[in-house]
Amino acid sequence: MIWYQKEIILSRRRGFHLITDEVLRNCPEIKKISAGIMHLFLKHTSASLSLNENASPDVRRDLETHFNRAVPENASYEHDLEGPDDMPAHIKSSILGTSLSIPISGGKLSLGTWQGIYLCEHRNYGGNRKIIVTVMGMEED
Amino acid sequence: MIWYQKEIILSRRRGFHLITDEVLRNCPEIKKISAGIMHLFLKHTSASLSLNENASPDVRRDLETHFNRAVPENASYEHDLEGPDDMPAHIKSSILGTSLSIPISGGKLSLGTWQGIYLCEHRNYGGNRKIIVTVMGMEED
Amino acid sequence: MIWYQKEIILSRRRGFHLITDEVLRNCPEIKKISAGIMHLFLKHTSASLSLNENASPDVRRDLETHFNRAVPENASYEHDLEGPDDMPAHIKSSILGTSLSIPISGGKLSLGTWQGIYLCEHRNYGGNRKIIVTVMGMEED
Repeated sequence: MIWYQKEIILSRRRGFHLITDEVLRNCPEIKKISAGIMHLFLKHTSASLSLNENASPDVRRDLETHFNRAVPENASYEHDLEGPDDMPAHIKSSILGTSLSIPISGGKLSLGTWQGIYLCEHRNYGGNRKIIVTVMGMEED
Repeated sequence: MIWYQKEIILSRRRGFHLITDEVLRNCPEIKKISAGIMHLFLKHTSASLSLNENASPDVRRDLETHFNRAVPENASYEHDLEGPDDMPAHIKSSILGTSLSIPISGGKLSLGTWQGIYLCEHRNYGGNRKIIVTVMGMEED
Repeated sequence: MIWYQKEIILSRRRGFHLITDEVLRNCPEIKKISAGIMHLFLKHTSASLSLNENASPDVRRDLETHFNRAVPENASYEHDLEGPDDMPAHIKSSILGTSLSIPISGGKLSLGTWQGIYLCEHRNYGGNRKIIVTVMGMEED
């Protein structure tokens, strides 16, 4: 049984962004695991992590458009000290979630052909975002 | 400590479907575990996994109706190559999520009385859906 | 490797509520773990667990307001035997989810500065809610 934990820091402009390659580059330990789980945890309340299509950039733009319409900035929130993107970002973060658990099989993430890891930045100026990666599993023989 | 991992394949028509029995039938290993976690991971971006009411079929129909209204097919998506159900399916998949972690206690899934595992098929013709089941935990004495 | 599992019972009025302190008070075992995961699982289909802002109560009120607007009580649901808050509660539960996985590092939950654990009660009279806490990880030297 292996446990491995580290923090990675990413910064993206507002929108939905593919981060699979950066996550993998930071986690070479996955190669040692025959069966296990990679857990990603975003330490913030105004951004989120999700899994979705890894090919067409238009999927990521449509996601941004959908969530801006579904969680409008002009909805008279009580919590508005940091501007109109503040409270919608909190709501989107709870809808999409801030953690992912992905199986590891035979030294690789067991993602589907079309699945990619997304960092979803809901603030106009979100700055650095910390992600705790926890890898657990059985060691390869 | 036990780790167990397998793939199961399910196919359902569009809508929300109870799959608890099929998941359990494929995972007899749970019986050996005194305390642990069963992790389910759907390898797709246009369907999802969720937990909800296991009794009334009308709950599953109302969920389908709600998500069709909240994520409409006629919203002028950029990503529409595969038809009007394509992009809404991606959005629903990110809202509902594609993985579940359920505790195992005393050789059984520790679901609440009314909780069932759902496969939510968001495409009109989704075809086969692969689910990776990872079971981890302490072995019963 | 440590596995620890227990049930905690909480009761809250309708709305979004911070429960971080109560969860921690019930899980002193976290202190023994150098790297691991705390998994929380709500055994219900009309409430949910989420992570969001731990400071301003107005964030929690705005979340309640948003989800009441996004999942209206007067939407002609088939499933309405238990009143107008019944089916919306099921929908909110699937959107927000009923489980959380939070990393443990150096004997502490690795939450971000502003992150708190929420119990989201979607029924008018939800009563007691059972949460299974599963703690797993490597023991401190």
